[in-house]
Amino acid sequence: MEKNILKIGIIGLGTVGSGVVKTLKNFENVEIKAAAVRNLNKKRDVEVQNLTDDPFKIVNDPEIDVVVEVAGGCNPALELITTAIKNKKHIVTANKELLAKFGAQIFDLANENNVSVLYEAAVAGGIPIIGPIKTTLRGNIFSKVAGILNGTTNYILTKMEEKNISYTECLKDAQALGYAEADPTGDVEGYDAMYKIATLANITFHKRIDVNQIYREGITKISADDIKFANELGYKIKLIGLAQKTENDELDIRVHPMLVPVSNMISGINNAMNAVLLEGFPVDKVMFTGPGAGEFPTASSVVGDILQIAGEFNHTDTVLPLHRCPHKEKAKQIDIKHTKNKYYISIKAPNSKGTIGIIGTACGNNNINLSSILQKGIKEDNTAQVIVITEVANEFDIQNAIKELNAQNIEINNLIRVM
Amino acid sequence: MEKNILKIGIIGLGTVGSGVVKTLKNFENVEIKAAAVRNLNKKRDVEVQNLTDDPFKIVNDPEIDVVVEVAGGCNPALELITTAIKNKKHIVTANKELLAKFGAQIFDLANENNVSVLYEAAVAGGIPIIGPIKTTLRGNIFSKVAGILNGTTNYILTKMEEKNISYTECLKDAQALGYAEADPTGDVEGYDAMYKIATLANITFHKRIDVNQIYREGITKISADDIKFANELGYKIKLIGLAQKTENDELDIRVHPMLVPVSNMISGINNAMNAVLLEGFPVDKVMFTGPGAGEFPTASSVVGDILQIAGEFNHTDTVLPLHRCPHKEKAKQIDIKHTKNKYYISIKAPNSKGTIGIIGTACGNNNINLSSILQKGIKEDNTAQVIVITEVANEFDIQNAIKELNAQNIEINNLIRVM
Repeated sequence: MEKNILKIGIIGLGTVGSGVVKTLKNFENVEIKAAAVRNLNKKRDVEVQNLTDDPFKIVNDPEIDVVVEVAGGCNPALELITTAIKNKKHIVTANKELLAKFGAQIFDLANENNVSVLYEAAVAGGIPIIGPIKTTLRGNIFSKVAGILNGTTNYILTKMEEKNISYTECLKDAQALGYAEADPTGDVEGYDAMYKIATLANITFHKRIDVNQIYREGITKISADDIKFANELGYKIKLIGLAQKTENDELDIRVHPMLVPVSNMISGINNAMNAVLLEGFPVDKVMFTGPGAGEFPTASSVVGDILQIAGEFNHTDTVLPLHRCPHKEKAKQIDIKHTKNKYYISIKAPNSKGTIGIIGTACGNNNINLSSILQKGIKEDNTAQVIVITEVANEFDIQNAIKELNAQNIEINNLIRVM
Repeated sequence: MEKNILKIGIIGLGTVGSGVVKTLKNFENVEIKAAAVRNLNKKRDVEVQNLTDDPFKIVNDPEIDVVVEVAGGCNPALELITTAIKNKKHIVTANKELLAKFGAQIFDLANENNVSVLYEAAVAGGIPIIGPIKTTLRGNIFSKVAGILNGTTNYILTKMEEKNISYTECLKDAQALGYAEADPTGDVEGYDAMYKIATLANITFHKRIDVNQIYREGITKISADDIKFANELGYKIKLIGLAQKTENDELDIRVHPMLVPVSNMISGINNAMNAVLLEGFPVDKVMFTGPGAGEFPTASSVVGDILQIAGEFNHTDTVLPLHRCPHKEKAKQIDIKHTKNKYYISIKAPNSKGTIGIIGTACGNNNINLSSILQKGIKEDNTAQVIVITEVANEFDIQNAIKELNAQNIEINNLIRVM
């Protein structure tokens, strides 16, 4: 079986695809056989010999060994990838949405067809994380994986803090600078981070994850005040993807903003950087940081996957177990209301003597102990802004306390969980 | 070739070996066939069936597939490992000294005999770094690898800062707490970090490294004052292992204390934690942090290597290229005197008006620009402590400036390079 050169077909020559073509120039054991693009006439800064606007030509080309899918979205990506797998092609993809929604189906099909599906670039851009979890850290039983998984929102939160500006103003700047898309929903509402934590949870806990059961909250409600108050209290606000085992061996998976203590290294991850923290036995805690997106960092991960397949290509006729996702057991995922957290609560209350008492009583009624309570001055409309940080409490109890406060004309500006 | 269970023999049942035995209990595809120990009668908290005090029985046992060497030192480790390789056994080792001194010989022999030599645990304990460089980051051309590679010295420097105590006092505390050995030379004089940066440079730059050409300086000359002044100027002092490409494609490899700006994440790596930073194209910068030593973190890396071999064991008759170290080219390593750095210089000078002038002149004579100069009060012996931070200068020029100062009765307390 001497087939020295690995032939790849690329679907998508956008930012990531271009980076892959440029990076692969350094490697003689991989040949780009063809690439599929949406618009054949578009000017590009990379040259690929066989360009097509029909991606099915790539997945059906008998000469292509590996299909590199960097176009994104589920349609037609799912059909393309399943067709390619049935045609016995290995897959390298950066498609976090596809993996989160259809990973189980894709991995089953890949196992049946004895091909590899690698996806280092789907999580945290250039940071090596999928590979290390599957190989170097394979001996561990993990209890937690968490991190900053979306560069756009981290950039926005960093700039909101630096410039003391509102989310809306900051988003406009980020869009102008190319850090946020024209329709930023996927990033700012936490969908992107949700897809990534789904994939991380899958390989960390060896369970199938239902992405629809992941609690998700974006950063659009974070105010400049929240960031300022958090800073005063010794925290940074970060959008965190989190998956952790509960005492009952269930999984608590969610994406939402969190107050991160400045003593935690994650609080120091700024701008478009990403970070992933793993906790397990025997390794204890390890953290990986680096660029979470961008042409070249993402290409680093895609090319790493391609070279891994190239390295095994001439030497084994099977897919090595470390590349497989053989686990079929579905995770028991708990609802956010059954989680326990510390909370930051920003409260808008009438400026009257009884307010602090009402807040204290509502918390006490619901088994919530307060760790600190600060009144942040009186506003022009004669309301007081009160910041409460709780001890660990049940989410269920917190939601009830908030209902009690609302019933007494006390509004909640924001509720943010604390790491 | 159905040989489902991988049989391993362990040389050394000390801290790391015990951790490996405990961790492997979770994995059914690996069997510990035998272990070699120095003292058969010593009480241990792990049980291994076939204990021997003759490690050659392990490397010559025809039933053993993988030899796990976690005893350390070069003698008899080199003979044991080369014998095992000739007997077609794969090797997993945590032996940084052996790899730094005899890696070339070992890798050549392994290639000839078609066996894997894996050594994730030899660098930065539980942090996945060897694996990611060889696989996930394989598409990169690196310009730099640097980090905190020794837990003992990082612990001492952290505590010196926290408690404002001298190196000597701190070392005693660290020894009492088990963070430093009775003979701490290997750690505090930088040998351990030197072995690790040699191995990192080897796989990062695909060149053979002569460990004898690596400049090495430990932490024993760092004073509580140095740490205090560095803090005042916005730096932390860390023992850094560094390997970087020069403009002429030579390698600048060294281990010495450095002032690290607090804005650099490496400055926040405290106590016995390690960190490794990689810079290259296309990934840009990635950093890995975690526990640099200890029974379980180190076992995580050893077991990861064992499981990697187990994963490939039934599926390929050859060593996959990603596990090989085929490069035979020797690195061109430059001498420290040909490097360029910023410098922190702590100067003890007579308390006279001309002193600052003499210092300025000596620097000017040698093409050294000063970025800041601080006089830190007059001591009882009527000497002044002067702290100078230079712009980037040639090491050669710095050494000449120091000679000029010494000739004029001005002593140098310490010279520390700045990151």
